[in-house]
Amino acid sequence: MSQVTCDLTISIDGFAAGPNQSLTEPLGEGGELMHRWQFEEPESNAAEREGILAAGAYIMGRNMFAGPGPGAWAEEWRGWWGEEPPYHAPVFVLTHHRREPLEMQGGTTFNFVTDGIESALAQAREAAGSKDVAVAGGAQTVRQFLSAGLIDELRLHIAPILLGAGERLLDGVANLTLEPTEVSGTSLVTHVRYRVIR
Amino acid sequence: MSQVTCDLTISIDGFAAGPNQSLTEPLGEGGELMHRWQFEEPESNAAEREGILAAGAYIMGRNMFAGPGPGAWAEEWRGWWGEEPPYHAPVFVLTHHRREPLEMQGGTTFNFVTDGIESALAQAREAAGSKDVAVAGGAQTVRQFLSAGLIDELRLHIAPILLGAGERLLDGVANLTLEPTEVSGTSLVTHVRYRVIR
Repeated sequence: MSQVTCDLTISIDGFAAGPNQSLTEPLGEGGELMHRWQFEEPESNAAEREGILAAGAYIMGRNMFAGPGPGAWAEEWRGWWGEEPPYHAPVFVLTHHRREPLEMQGGTTFNFVTDGIESALAQAREAAGSKDVAVAGGAQTVRQFLSAGLIDELRLHIAPILLGAGERLLDGVANLTLEPTEVSGTSLVTHVRYRVIR
Repeated sequence: MSQVTCDLTISIDGFAAGPNQSLTEPLGEGGELMHRWQFEEPESNAAEREGILAAGAYIMGRNMFAGPGPGAWAEEWRGWWGEEPPYHAPVFVLTHHRREPLEMQGGTTFNFVTDGIESALAQAREAAGSKDVAVAGGAQTVRQFLSAGLIDELRLHIAPILLGAGERLLDGVANLTLEPTEVSGTSLVTHVRYRVIR
């Protein structure tokens, strides 16, 4: 059965992004270093990288699409990923500001959802068909979905670095019971797959 | 070559102890739940449990020996572990208050060190001979040793529960570079062995 998954890379001290996120450092200071496992060891981590991009539809927070700071859309903003984003599937962006769907190359369409996470999930499920729906981030959005009990599998990729400050993934999430079902790793990352217990 | 090791069980949100540590709840509220892997799955986690108790000498903070709160010794206090503590080796307790060594049954002797962590480590190395020295806890003591670059191997046992509050293991530790060398686990714990990079 299709499920709702969430892949997230965090530091060993629990941060999903470093401090002072900005347009030039969207993952905050030091945040990019957490992702060395994806860029320096693509083959050793092939299964995990494929898992991240195997969903039939994605959900992301406004900041993950548009960078930090609230406010209406700069209509020319087309995401961080260039003209062919890696999703190759519908992406549902949570926002308070309406915007027409944005069709990119390679099958990615950004759809803007203004009526909340349950609506985004329903639309993503519909779009994904028999495939999984993935909550892509950022941390605040993941926390919302975890707190609402809407995620079935949390896949943490724990980078062996300390950020010391930034945005913690799990702060304020309550009533979450997890069961690790699989662990693996390399010298740059520890992968832990958690099933959310209902 | 013998090394300085540290085994610590933490929650998935990074706490080594829950909030409100007290004489009746020395690990804080919810803290005991992190240790289910030791008590409910002793056989599946046999290697890790043996690893915790394989050192030739131990170092611990005052609170781990005596419970929360500063002040001079209540001389009748003989630790949390009954008359035969599980260490079966010399234990060096960091404190500001002098006290005569306390010999327990089964080879454990608590020695009280008032001149700092370097001195405790030198004494523990001497006592351990060719065996490892283990920093047993609590979190504050581990942070001191990590920050001073005195630990060679950090073995985290990550319990799949959220504590939400309490004492974080890694807060304020700087200049720490780690490399995961081994991962394993069960449904109650994820074991990650980290080598500290110098």
